[in-house]
Parts: sequence; structure tokens; C-alpha cells
Amino acid sequence: MEQRDSGTAPPELGVGMVGYAFMGAAHSQGWRTVSRVFDLPMRPVLAAIAGRDPRAVRSAAGRLGWAAVETDWRDLVARDDVQLVDICTPGDLHAEIAIAALEAGKHVLCEKPLANTVAEAEAMAAAAERAGARGQAAMVGFNYRRVPAVAHARRLIAEGRLGTLRHLRFTYLQDWLVDPLAPLTWRLQRRHAGSGALGDLGAHIVDLAQHLAGEPLTGVSALTETFVRERPLLPVLAAPGSSGASGSPGSSGSPDSLGSSASSGSSGSSGGPPGTVEHGPVTVDDAVLFHGRLASGALASFEATRMASGRKNALRFEINGERGSLAFDLERLNELSFHDHTEPVTSSGFRRILVTEAEHPYLRAWWPPGHALGYEHTFTHQAHDLIAAIARGQRPDPSFADGLQVQRVLAAVEHSAQNNAVHTPVPPPAGPPHRTGGA
Amino acid sequence: MEQRDSGTAPPELGVGMVGYAFMGAAHSQGWRTVSRVFDLPMRPVLAAIAGRDPRAVRSAAGRLGWAAVETDWRDLVARDDVQLVDICTPGDLHAEIAIAALEAGKHVLCEKPLANTVAEAEAMAAAAERAGARGQAAMVGFNYRRVPAVAHARRLIAEGRLGTLRHLRFTYLQDWLVDPLAPLTWRLQRRHAGSGALGDLGAHIVDLAQHLAGEPLTGVSALTETFVRERPLLPVLAAPGSSGASGSPGSSGSPDSLGSSASSGSSGSSGGPPGTVEHGPVTVDDAVLFHGRLASGALASFEATRMASGRKNALRFEINGERGSLAFDLERLNELSFHDHTEPVTSSGFRRILVTEAEHPYLRAWWPPGHALGYEHTFTHQAHDLIAAIARGQRPDPSFADGLQVQRVLAAVEHSAQNNAVHTPVPPPAGPPHRTGGA
Amino acid sequence: MEQRDSGTAPPELGVGMVGYAFMGAAHSQGWRTVSRVFDLPMRPVLAAIAGRDPRAVRSAAGRLGWAAVETDWRDLVARDDVQLVDICTPGDLHAEIAIAALEAGKHVLCEKPLANTVAEAEAMAAAAERAGARGQAAMVGFNYRRVPAVAHARRLIAEGRLGTLRHLRFTYLQDWLVDPLAPLTWRLQRRHAGSGALGDLGAHIVDLAQHLAGEPLTGVSALTETFVRERPLLPVLAAPGSSGASGSPGSSGSPDSLGSSASSGSSGSSGGPPGTVEHGPVTVDDAVLFHGRLASGALASFEATRMASGRKNALRFEINGERGSLAFDLERLNELSFHDHTEPVTSSGFRRILVTEAEHPYLRAWWPPGHALGYEHTFTHQAHDLIAAIARGQRPDPSFADGLQVQRVLAAVEHSAQNNAVHTPVPPPAGPPHRTGGA
Amino acid sequence: MEQRDSGTAPPELGVGMVGYAFMGAAHSQGWRTVSRVFDLPMRPVLAAIAGRDPRAVRSAAGRLGWAAVETDWRDLVARDDVQLVDICTPGDLHAEIAIAALEAGKHVLCEKPLANTVAEAEAMAAAAERAGARGQAAMVGFNYRRVPAVAHARRLIAEGRLGTLRHLRFTYLQDWLVDPLAPLTWRLQRRHAGSGALGDLGAHIVDLAQHLAGEPLTGVSALTETFVRERPLLPVLAAPGSSGASGSPGSSGSPDSLGSSASSGSSGSSGGPPGTVEHGPVTVDDAVLFHGRLASGALASFEATRMASGRKNALRFEINGERGSLAFDLERLNELSFHDHTEPVTSSGFRRILVTEAEHPYLRAWWPPGHALGYEHTFTHQAHDLIAAIARGQRPDPSFADGLQVQRVLAAVEHSAQNNAVHTPVPPPAGPPHRTGGA
Repeated sequence: MEQRDSGTAPPELGVGMVGYAFMGAAHSQGWRTVSRVFDLPMRPVLAAIAGRDPRAVRSAAGRLGWAAVETDWRDLVARDDVQLVDICTPGDLHAEIAIAALEAGKHVLCEKPLANTVAEAEAMAAAAERAGARGQAAMVGFNYRRVPAVAHARRLIAEGRLGTLRHLRFTYLQDWLVDPLAPLTWRLQRRHAGSGALGDLGAHIVDLAQHLAGEPLTGVSALTETFVRERPLLPVLAAPGSSGASGSPGSSGSPDSLGSSASSGSSGSSGGPPGTVEHGPVTVDDAVLFHGRLASGALASFEATRMASGRKNALRFEINGERGSLAFDLERLNELSFHDHTEPVTSSGFRRILVTEAEHPYLRAWWPPGHALGYEHTFTHQAHDLIAAIARGQRPDPSFADGLQVQRVLAAVEHSAQNNAVHTPVPPPAGPPHRTGGA
Repeated sequence: MEQRDSGTAPPELGVGMVGYAFMGAAHSQGWRTVSRVFDLPMRPVLAAIAGRDPRAVRSAAGRLGWAAVETDWRDLVARDDVQLVDICTPGDLHAEIAIAALEAGKHVLCEKPLANTVAEAEAMAAAAERAGARGQAAMVGFNYRRVPAVAHARRLIAEGRLGTLRHLRFTYLQDWLVDPLAPLTWRLQRRHAGSGALGDLGAHIVDLAQHLAGEPLTGVSALTETFVRERPLLPVLAAPGSSGASGSPGSSGSPDSLGSSASSGSSGSSGGPPGTVEHGPVTVDDAVLFHGRLASGALASFEATRMASGRKNALRFEINGERGSLAFDLERLNELSFHDHTEPVTSSGFRRILVTEAEHPYLRAWWPPGHALGYEHTFTHQAHDLIAAIARGQRPDPSFADGLQVQRVLAAVEHSAQNNAVHTPVPPPAGPPHRTGGA
Repeated sequence: MEQRDSGTAPPELGVGMVGYAFMGAAHSQGWRTVSRVFDLPMRPVLAAIAGRDPRAVRSAAGRLGWAAVETDWRDLVARDDVQLVDICTPGDLHAEIAIAALEAGKHVLCEKPLANTVAEAEAMAAAAERAGARGQAAMVGFNYRRVPAVAHARRLIAEGRLGTLRHLRFTYLQDWLVDPLAPLTWRLQRRHAGSGALGDLGAHIVDLAQHLAGEPLTGVSALTETFVRERPLLPVLAAPGSSGASGSPGSSGSPDSLGSSASSGSSGSSGGPPGTVEHGPVTVDDAVLFHGRLASGALASFEATRMASGRKNALRFEINGERGSLAFDLERLNELSFHDHTEPVTSSGFRRILVTEAEHPYLRAWWPPGHALGYEHTFTHQAHDLIAAIARGQRPDPSFADGLQVQRVLAAVEHSAQNNAVHTPVPPPAGPPHRTGGA
Repeated sequence: MEQRDSGTAPPELGVGMVGYAFMGAAHSQGWRTVSRVFDLPMRPVLAAIAGRDPRAVRSAAGRLGWAAVETDWRDLVARDDVQLVDICTPGDLHAEIAIAALEAGKHVLCEKPLANTVAEAEAMAAAAERAGARGQAAMVGFNYRRVPAVAHARRLIAEGRLGTLRHLRFTYLQDWLVDPLAPLTWRLQRRHAGSGALGDLGAHIVDLAQHLAGEPLTGVSALTETFVRERPLLPVLAAPGSSGASGSPGSSGSPDSLGSSASSGSSGSSGGPPGTVEHGPVTVDDAVLFHGRLASGALASFEATRMASGRKNALRFEINGERGSLAFDLERLNELSFHDHTEPVTSSGFRRILVTEAEHPYLRAWWPPGHALGYEHTFTHQAHDLIAAIARGQRPDPSFADGLQVQRVLAAVEHSAQNNAVHTPVPPPAGPPHRTGGA
């Protein structure tokens, strides 16, 4: 019998996570798995997790595999065994935690959208720039860049396989708010979430469009709509302050419930007469549409909604260039459609590339061809890329500056939607060219 | 041996057609076939066809099955054996011919878009209204309403299977202008075509969206683009006046060439030095994007382009309602995708209805289930519906008033695109409620 | 006003058709349309149609466009204005009519399968060979060879794009017999139809496999099954002899009813007590499976059934070779899937070729790219190819010899199914190499 | 700061694994993840891993997360901290290890196919039955039963949504042997693998067909083929005995290489003259086709091949019943196609169920709707189901008896293929009814 040889083990990287709902569980899976699959220069350790409710956070730590718990995120940031703070809270806490962590010398991974306002995002980007000078990394969690098919799409575009881009059309369609009885979670309240479908879904597709094209949007013309203006209160939200936790106010509601269907907040006891359910106002958008131009002149359109019945997670894009086109659907995330317009017309057509070959991004570490990856792998890949950037001392991608750029687009969208859809410019990103490395 | 019994033959309806390019051939197929497949109250007779070039029009008549030819459309309108004038010319001739024909007491079928300007369309609608009072029919050729899957989609919506509509997204993507050497046909010149992708493709999807939803668009915010500003002249266009013909200026160019690949205008001899090809300005849009709201508040987005490499005829739509969703792609025109949101979530999903059952619109007359129809069948169905309306003395659907409404949307799109994408209202349709009968 | 110039009209080819149910209507559409779309060396004229019931055949002639009617097919064969006899009857009449017509000096087009027995098919092939020496053509109506996507598949294989073939898998799935109350039409009776799914559907896929591969099957191992052993009698069949007609015994039953849902034979008055429906035995197979090897050693599998609920007309194949693969589904007949195995693995995958380009088989005569063709176009193309062969004095393809070869495969399938699925050889085709010209 | 509360932690279950190639990595991911996602009655601990090469097994243990290593599987079986032995070796070691482990009182999970011969499988099933009486579990790793869409398919069939089954067609298509230079790994040698595509791929689809239908195959008629009879030797195989290891002879070859493309054995130095590569005989099938009947009379067809260019992991099935149909493709493993034949024909069609709802099998523990799972999740689910069976003291499903039944089908296939494809019966499974519980 021999014990495992750990003589060559890489140095550890202590991770502390704030929040443990949907995103917390997904990030945990990424941190746990990444060193089992990839050869890494540093090995992440799930050091501690923070949440305000002691019982809930302890339970989450046990289930998700975190070594210690904190009930105040400030204590987590202060821990010596934490070198990286992973922020999985609603948007209203991003800025405060991220800036504190950066100032405490920690690396930071922050869920998207970077913040609830441009001002917050500017402060975060400034903090990240100062920290970057000290060798700290700050990354925003646009995890869909890490879908192998998406990373492969970027490669094909960067290699010129599409030529000059003409059209980009992006939609992100979900349907969990079609039911007017879906409860009023934190995601439907402006003070917590900043915006609705715009920040939750739209932020992803704005980032992807700019990332894939390698150039920014120059302006937008937008419509937003809130179809269902009032929804049933959740017990926890009817009595704010009683719970919520520093890290995870969103303990219910479809995408945050992690399968615990029991908590669908049917009581609403805090208020109205027995037998009725108190309602509160939805203060964010259910849906948003906008179009605009990229710096090169390509036309781009975007739609994000949670009211598209039958569409569960339909982040779809199609990009048309002079030499070819690409199409993608997150509901079939192992596939990329590619049309090579330079082929003879008799044998050309959109081909379905199964992005599962060893030569595809991230795939050498996984399974043989044709063996599908899933949603959670994006977090493993995100962890991989962040650790690689930290080890090399490079700015991770997407940076907080990239997150700020997306935030400016979101703000322009809201401005346009409030002003008769008039074209609203987006300030060009400052500093170094937008396009950096990538998978 | 017995001769065919024609004792019960229905009365004849003499048809005269102006133009014989792509649309002329397609309409001819419809007129020839309709009485062979459907039981009709009147039997169309292909009486005469008009075109300016005597040789070309004679050849077309022989091939397409027209009994006589005219080289001036006025002579065709004047013929006693013509009771219905079918206008398949470029848009700049629609108003003059249609109004003349209506005033001459003829029924009229006019290709879409109804006209090149709102003013023309208003005059045509007024003429149609006057003629309607005399029992004449005037229909605009939005043939895609006659795709069985589209007609079935309308039925499902009208029956309430989608509930309150939330989202409509329509694209019409083609790629025949991706090649910068594609020649400058009439479709690329404002004076002939009125607009580019907007009128050619956008008119179809505006009509379909309003038709399917049963309500009008209230306004739009739009972008247009002309990516390739100059294109090689066609010989015929380099020397305007030498041809053009009353009926068929569009004798070349991809969608009008009917397979004659030889005429792709590579000479351009009329001008520059030997070996060079003279170019002319493209005066219409290559692509257009717009979004807006329907009267009920549903959000709608539209994109029409001829620059989407790999997409040949991708008229696609998806409509999401509270109770269900529909999706369609003209490249798979025998299929309709339907999601029933009232089903249990464990067994619901978009189903692919093969719209080839006897119970589906138009299908009882055709083949057994699963035997596909094609593009040209829309013209057979259009002929069927027009003849039925004439025989019943009803206003055909879509009427010139419907065509005028679409024209107003197109005008609003152009206005918005020229004014910073600002939301531009569309006047509500006048008179009787928009929604009328249908397939 | 000018009359149509018909000075250059090609010589006429008088067509006489026997039968006017489903196949008769489809063939009529082909004969009517072919000269309107293609430039032909001879122009087909719909001279006469034969059927035993005078009233029904007169009605069919009027609707389908035939100039004269006969109530005895012998009289049709004898007509001077008929140079080509088109046989659209059930299989039990094929041999007699075809041999008589060939001996009368007529060209013949005979629906598939060529015959009900190998002996009949041998006699027909012998008659065709004798007639061929006199310059007469005899073609069997395997119309699916004329789907442009199928013809293009053959081109790609003939060009070597697939390399050595390894696998062919063909299915033809329908579902119109799932309902145990579907009536006992002629297609379910061995004396009329010869076999069930085997001859009706299996014959098509056997022909296609051999045609596409360019080589014959060497033997088969087979299973057959009749799941529903008795079905309700149709009135006409309950009293045989009262009808049936030389030309149209198949006046009911799903694929022969042409949308006339009224005739679904619910009465069954000829027999049992009031209120009950008399049943009769199904004497053919509902479904058949077989596998075998092509001459080159490639493995092939086949399945034909009318009991595959939800599949309406799913003639599907996939062919895998060392250098590439093809896949096709008749329910999406404008598409061909092609995988080029010589491409780099990172960008390879099955591409969806929209077979609607002018450069694709038959397409130059039709519409612009992306404008779909339908089922009936196969009959127009079949008419085109047969007329071209007649004009050139060449043997048409597929010949009666090809039809005989398919018949031998069907017989081997039945032999194997009756003998414990034991491998049953198929005699190699005699004479000239199987592979001849093609689209 | 609080430490994690582990007071309520469930008892541990020590797992020892033999083999660490492709299957070993996949199983490890399952064992590591299952208790982080599911609430389990026992928590698996990755106690020890066995492999013959000390250096390689140590490296694998470190990467995959195993606490200890052994270089002889007998030592692993003997460990006190191992209660469950997980066998991931080639088939020639299954029987010896499994029987030894069962006799040592361990639970066993054994990769499929259960064995290389029926005799081995019988001995294993007998040992499992004896061990079962002592409360030990023995499961065979038909992991595809654990794809949520497949488990959902079984539910729908068990609920009667398909009615009486008529047709099952299963294919499992891969293409990693299309290249004739793909090396001669253990999977291509009968003494190690037992058979080729038959045991590797065919075993899966035989198991799934019987599992889904809930009834056994009664016999088969089969063809097999080895298209490429010789392949380049791998260095390791050219010198057998020098390596191989008890646990992982299959250290190269496409599906076992885990992305290490370097090891494609191009040297072959052990033998021939410099510059040439020594070849060895392929002693298993490249492809196999067979058809037969289930006990109820439904027809079933099967094809397994590694020569289907462009198909990477295409385990596909379609099942047709009187009341509905199902279709599945492992390359799109989050989807299940379902046709409900009891719906009105105008709105019926195959629907694409995205099997990602909390109400679907296994899904409550994972992500929100529309967030895809991957291939490796099947191993997490397999671990879940095995642990649940152990904790409840129930026979796991599929049992070794089920594995034996599959082995008998494989043997019948080989017998038929060697005997002119003659129908070869499969003995009915003994003892309790085949159908037991399930997901």
C-alpha cells in the first residue's frame, strides 16, 4: 500500500465565497472540480463561505464543501486563509464587498452584472486598477464566455473565418415570469437587482457580442416593458431585515431555489387578511429590446426576456460576416453552427460542429469526442482561467473595466427606453484596446 | 371512347398579367394550377400577358402558358377577355397600373409592397374602395399568408391557444447581396423599388406580424444600413431606356433571373475602359432593424437583410404568449413549432407540427400527410382565395387598405432611421377593424 | 395586340394514363407542369385517361386536365394520340397493361413496385428489352430519385466525396395504419398490392440504396410483421366486383383518398347485423426490417412501416463512407446533410445544404435559392427525365430491369422472413453494369 | 468564525476503484460530486485506487482525488476502508475481480459489459446472488439509464403514454475507427475486450431497449463486420507484459486517452525495420447490425459501429407505440422528443422536451430549467442510485442478472452472425420479473 504522492502539489489558493444560492452552488462546483480535471499552477481550496443566517450558511458549507463559515462578509474578507473573494450576492452588495476585498489585498471574482449603477462600476473598476498595479486580479463572472462552443466561436472570428461582420443578433429568452403568480424575489426589485431581464440576461449578451466581435457597441435604441406590475410577496421579503443574509437574500424564486420547490412563498402572512396573499410592485423590467451599431458599423440587435413561454435558457446568437456565419443556442451548448461562405454553393450550408474535440477550447481535459459538457462546466473553466491569470500575473479577462463597459451599455439602454427609444451613445472604452487574450 | 364532360364547368375568369420575371412565373404557376386542385366557383383563364419587349414577352407567354401578349399594359387593361389584372412589375408602376385597371372595372391583384410611397398607396386604396363599391376586388400579394403553416398559426392564435401575446420577433434573412460584385438590378434602385430589404422583405414580415396578431403596430424605432454603396452596372441598366419594359425591368439579378445564370452582367461595356466594369450607386438599404409595440402592448422586433451569409430565404418568426408560443421558418415551410404552455412542464416543449394534414388550411386538396408543399403553392392558394372572394363578392384579404397600412409602417421605419432611431408613431388603420376573415 | 408565337414549339408526346387516384393526380401535375418550367425536346399532351367507372373517370379528367376518357385501358392503349402509357394502377394490373402497351409500340411509365411477383417483373423486363430494341422507353416510377437533394446525394457519392462506403441505413416510416380502424383498402390485400409496407415503402428505399451506392444488394435477412390482422371492410371491397375499375381500385384509404375524408367506409352494410362493421383479413405486412451487404461489402439496413406513430412520410437515410457521410429526410426534402470527413476536426460537422441553388439538380428551372420545392415536383422531374431519354433514344433510368432487380430483393426479403430470417441471396443483376447515367 | 457543523453527517462508504483510464476518471467525478449535490444516506469516500504501474497510479490518485493507492487489485479488495469496489478495467478482468470482491464482502459496481463471455457473466451473477443474500449490492454500470431524458422516457413508457409498443430502433454510432491508422488498443483485441462495437456500444443499446420496454429480446438475426483487419500496434501492446497494469491496460486509444493526443502510438519500434510501423490483427467487430422481437412482439433493430464518419457519440433511439412515440440522441442528451398520438392531428407532432425541470428525474438537485447537464452526470446519478440501494438494502438496478441477460443477447448476436444471420433465440431471463424499480 502506498500513500498518494503529493510532493509535486502546486501552491494553494484560498477561496472565500459570499453567497450560497444558485450562483454559490455553481461556483462551488467549479472550485471543487477544476484541479481534478486541469493541471493548474495553483490549487484552489474552499476555505470559507459567508452568509448572514448561521444555520443556513453552516448547512450550505457542509453540502457544498467549504471548510469554514462566516456570518459577516467582512470577517471573510479579513481571513488569512482567503486569498480570493468570490462574490455571489445580489448586485447591491457587489461594489462594497469587491472594493473592500481589493483594498484588503485579495483577488476578486464578482458575479455579473458588475454593479447596479455605472457609478458603482466606475468605483469598482478604479479599485481593480489600483489593485492590479499591486498584482491582484479582478474578474467579472461572464461565465458564458467559457462555454467551449462560444470560445471556439471567438477563435473562428479572430482567425477571420467570418470576414467583416455585418450582423449580430442576440436573444436571451427565459419563461419563469410568464406565470403572474411567480413571487416577487430580489431579482424583481430594483434596489437589489438594479434592473430585471436587462441586467440578469441582457448583460450576458452585451458582453458576448462585444467579446466575440472584439469591438464595442457605440450606442443603442431601446424598449423595455414590465408586463406584470405586481407579484405576490415572499414571506422573507414581506418582512425585510428579518432574513436576507449578507450574502443571499435570494433564497427562493425560480433560478435561485436550487430545486427546493417548497419555498415558493405562498403564505405572505405578513400583512393582508387571512387567505389573501399580499402583493408588491415589480420595479424592474420583464423584457428589453435594443439595437445599435458596433464600432466597425455592423448592426446588432438584442432581446432579453423572462416572458418567452417555452424558452428555458435560450441564449442564442447569430453572427453574419462577409465570409461566413455562426449560430449558437445555449440550450444546445455543445454545438456551434458554422457556415463557410467561401465554399462552393452546392455543398455549403450551416454545419453543426459538436464542440467536444480535444482540439476545441477546454476540451482536452475532459471526455472523448461527443461526450457532452453541461452548464456548470463554465464555472470550472472560469476558475481555470482566473487561476491561470493570477499565476501569470496578468489581468484576467473579462476585467472590471470590461464589466464597467457593459454597465455603460445597460445604462444607455435604460436612458433610451425612457426617452422615446432615441439613439443613445455609449462612451467608448478608455485605455488599452478592448480586445485582449482569451481562451 | 367518351369525351370529357364539361357541362358543369364553372364560369371563366380572364386573367391578364403585367410582368413576367420571377413573380410573373410564380403567379403563372398559381393561375395554371389552382383549378386543377381546388373546386372553384370560377375558372381562371390565362388570357394575356404584357411586356414592353415583343420578343421577350412572346417567349414568356409560350413558356408560361398565356394565350396572348401585349406590349403596352394599357392594351392589356383594355382587353375584353381580361377581368382581372395581375401586377407583377417593380413598385414604381404599381399605382398607375392598378388605378387604371380598377377604373376600367377590373379586379386587381398587385404584388407587394403595394407601392413605393404612402401617397401612391393612399391613391390606390382610395381607388380600391371606390371599385369595391362596384363589386371589384383588389388584393395585395402578401403570399406568405398562404403558407399552410402560417395560416394554421393564425388559426391557433385566433383560437386563443397563445393567450395574451407578449413577444413577436420576425426576421427575413437572405444573402444574395453579400457578394460585392452582385450587380445593380432594379431592386437596388430607389426610383424603381422604393426601398431595399425594407420593402422587399420587411413588408412581408410587417404584414405577417400584424396579420397573425390581428392588430397593428403603433410605432417603430429603426436602423437602416447600406453596406455596399456601389455595385457593377448591368448592361441594360448602364443604358437605361433601351429596355426596362413596361412590365419587366428586372430581367436579371439573383431573385429575378429564374435560373439564367448567364446574365450576371459581367460585361458593363457601356462606359469605362475595356476590362473595367462601370459601377453605379446603390440607393436603397441592404438591411433594416426596427422594434416597436403592437396595439395590445406586445413587443415586436423586425430585421430584414440581404447580407446574412448562409441564409437563403429565412423568413422566421417566433411569437410568445401567456398560454403558448409559435415558431416558423420559411426554409422549412411545411412545419410549425408550437409550445403549449398550459401542459404539465414534464412533458411540454416545442412540437414540430408537420402542416400537411387534410384538416390543415388548404391541405385537403393536396397530398396525403407528410407529402411536402413548396414555395409556389402560396400563389395557387392566393389565386384560390382571391377567386373565392370575387365569387362571394367579399373584400379580399389582404386588401389595398391593408397594403396601405404596411406602407405606413415602412414610411415610419424610414423616418425613424433618418432621425436617430427615435420612436415614430404609425397612424392607426382607419375604418373597419383590421381583423377580417382568413384562411 | 399580338398572338402568341408558337412557331418554335417542340413536337408533341401524347400521354395516356391508367388510374386517377393519388398517383394519378400526382402524375397529372407532373405532365401538366413540365413543359412550363423546363425547355423540352418534346411537349407532353394529356391525351386520355382510363378508368372503369365512366362517371368517376370523366370527373377526374375534367379536374386533372385530360382531354379524353376511356373506360377500358385496352382502348387507351389503342389510341393513336397516345404515344406513352402511364400506369398508375395497383400492382396486380401492372404487368398486363405494361406488356400490352409495349407490344403496341408505346413508351411506358409504370408506377412502383414494378410488379407483384418476380415472374411478372421478368416478363415486363423482357418486354421492355424487346421494345427498347425498337426505340421504345420503359421506366419504373421510383420518383424519389428525382428529389433534388437525393439526386445531389448521388452526385456527391459518384464524385467520391464519401470514399468507400461502410454503412447505409434506410427507413421509411409512416403511421396511417396505427389506428386499428383504418379500413381494409386494396393496399392491405395481397392479391392487389403484392405486399404491404414492403412493396409500397420498402421498394423505394431498396431502389434508392442501390441507386445511390451504384451497386446491388447481395442478400438479406428479414423480419416482417402484421400487427393488426383484421380491419373494417370498405363498402366497395365488401362487395367486390361492383367496382374496382381497371384504373382505380384504390378509391379510398388514406394515401389514396386525396383529401376526400367522406369515403372512410364506415358503413360495411354488406354483411353483418346492423350497427356492426364487417372485418376482413389483412393479407400483407404492416412492417418489415432487413439487413444485408452491398456488393462492395458495405452494411445496409432497411425498415419500412406504416405503424410508426408520428412519422408521416419519413423516408430517411444515412450513408457513411471513409471520407464523408450523407443524411436525408423526405419530410425535409429540400435539405441534404453532408459531413466532410476530410476537414479539420475543429470545424467539421454535418452541414445542412439547402438544395435550392441553380447549380443543384433540376433547380435551374425553378425559383431563387431558398424557395422550397414540394413532393409533386418529383413527378415533374420524372416526366422531364423520361422525355429527355425518349428524345435521345436512350434507356430511361430506372429501367424495367432496375425494377426487376428491386423485385428480386423484395422476394428475397419475403423468403428470409418466412425462413427464420436466414440470409437469402439476391441474384446479381444481369447484363450491363447496374450503374447508368442519372440526373 | 464558525467551523462547519458536521454533526449530522451521514455514515461513510469507502470506495476502492480498479482502473483509472477514461472510465476511472468519469467514475471518480461521480463519487466526488454525488454528496455535494444530493442528500444521501451514506457519504462516499474515495478511499483507494489500484493500478499496476506505481508511478501512473500515484499520479492518477493525486489528480482524481483518491486517498491511497494499491498496485495489486487484491490488496485493494482486502482493505478495511473499502466497502465498495468499483471495477473500471477491461472486460477480461471483470469476473475475477468482481467475484473476489463479492466473496470478500464488498459491494461491487462493475463497468459494462458485465463480462467477456456468458460463462463469466453466469459466475458473476451467481456470486452476486449469494452476496445479495448477505446484503451486498452488485450493480453493472449501464450508466446511460441515468441520463435524465432516458429515465424520463422510461417513466413515460411505464405510465402507458406510448401504449402497446410496435417498434424500437436503436443505433450507437461513433467514428473513431474510420481512420485506418487508429492504433490497435485493447478495445480491438478479443482477449481483452471480448468483442468490439458489439460489447462496447451494442451492450448499452441492448440494455436500454430492454430497460425502456420493460421486457426482454427473444432472439436476434445479426451481421458483423471488421472493415479494417489490421492496425498499427501501440508500443505498449507490441510488448505485452511490460505494462498494461491490472487496472488500466487501455492507456491510449481514442476514448481512453483523456485528451492526451501525444500517445497515439506512432512509433511501433518494437519489431519491424526502422521507419515502418508493425501492425497486428484486429480480432473484434468494427460494426454490428441485428434485429429481433421483444417478448410482446414489438420489432426491434440495433446497430453499433465505430465507423460512422461524423457521428461522435450518437446513441439514438426511437420507440413507436400505439399511443405515442419517443426519440432520443445522446449527442443532445438534455432533450427528449415525444409525440402524443392521442392529440388532435392538427396540433400534434414530436415535441422537444428539455429534460431540465425540477420534476424530471435527478433534476431537483441540479440547476434551474434550461441549464444543461453533461455526460459525466450519469456517473453521479449512478453513484446516487447505488448508494440509495445499498442504504435501503435493495437489489440495485441494473443487477448482475440484468448484465447476464445482456451478455446472452451479445452471445446470440455473435452466434447468428457466424451462422448466416439465422434467427438465434435468447433464453428468457430467469427468476423474478425483469422489470424492477427505477429512477
